[in-house]
Amino acid sequence: MPDRLSDAALDLLGSPTVATVVTLDPDGSPHITVAWIGIEDDEIVFGTLNDQRKLRNLRRDPRIALTVFGERVNEWGLREYLVIEGTARITDGGGPELLQHLAHSYLGPDVVFPAMPDPPPGFVTRVRIGRIGGIGPWRR
Amino acid sequence: MPDRLSDAALDLLGSPTVATVVTLDPDGSPHITVAWIGIEDDEIVFGTLNDQRKLRNLRRDPRIALTVFGERVNEWGLREYLVIEGTARITDGGGPELLQHLAHSYLGPDVVFPAMPDPPPGFVTRVRIGRIGGIGPWRR
Repeated sequence: MPDRLSDAALDLLGSPTVATVVTLDPDGSPHITVAWIGIEDDEIVFGTLNDQRKLRNLRRDPRIALTVFGERVNEWGLREYLVIEGTARITDGGGPELLQHLAHSYLGPDVVFPAMPDPPPGFVTRVRIGRIGGIGPWRR
Repeated sequence: MPDRLSDAALDLLGSPTVATVVTLDPDGSPHITVAWIGIEDDEIVFGTLNDQRKLRNLRRDPRIALTVFGERVNEWGLREYLVIEGTARITDGGGPELLQHLAHSYLGPDVVFPAMPDPPPGFVTRVRIGRIGGIGPWRR
């Protein structure tokens, strides 16, 4: 049974917080990038315009881990953070539309993103949630 | 030749910014935690009191990746971030002393950390920098 996200986790993931995204390079070493993320049907989603290294990594090995920082600081002075380990699948197309949707909360309600006339169709990556970790009230 | 840190990268790493730290679990999947970090002799250092999973991971496979967010936002509205890929070695002892040193900048000049009478000797992890990435002026 995969872990389930608490309301606090859903609130955090639905806020405009930039996620750190980890995939695995061909030699198995960790590759870190960042992404805007959203939630759809209990999965984490992110959009990309180009076929980035993290996408090529995920096609070869779908294991992924993401983390976002929360706002609260615990009694040890340590900031809360949410970690999600899961598996990703990539679908072709829909990248600009998802990025535009996310840009409304990340950048502002009137922002046009990507700011280019004919963006490529790009990709949408969906992450099925496996294990939930970190420090904070993230698990239901 | 490993990449070398720019002055901007050194400034960021020397500031009280919490790093996201990625190691590899026994099955090769990425494990994410966070840590206070410092710079010593061009290496990243962090301290731990207990023999955490990330330390057990690093003894088996020393590959490590760290990332910290910068303050600046680029022309796309994306926040800068620094990624460091490297290899770690762990030394026994010195954990509380390093944590106390870092706590002065992370929590405040008068903070006692860890706030316990007889902390265990703990561990210091030193990361030799291999590749420097991310978005920002991080490479010399």
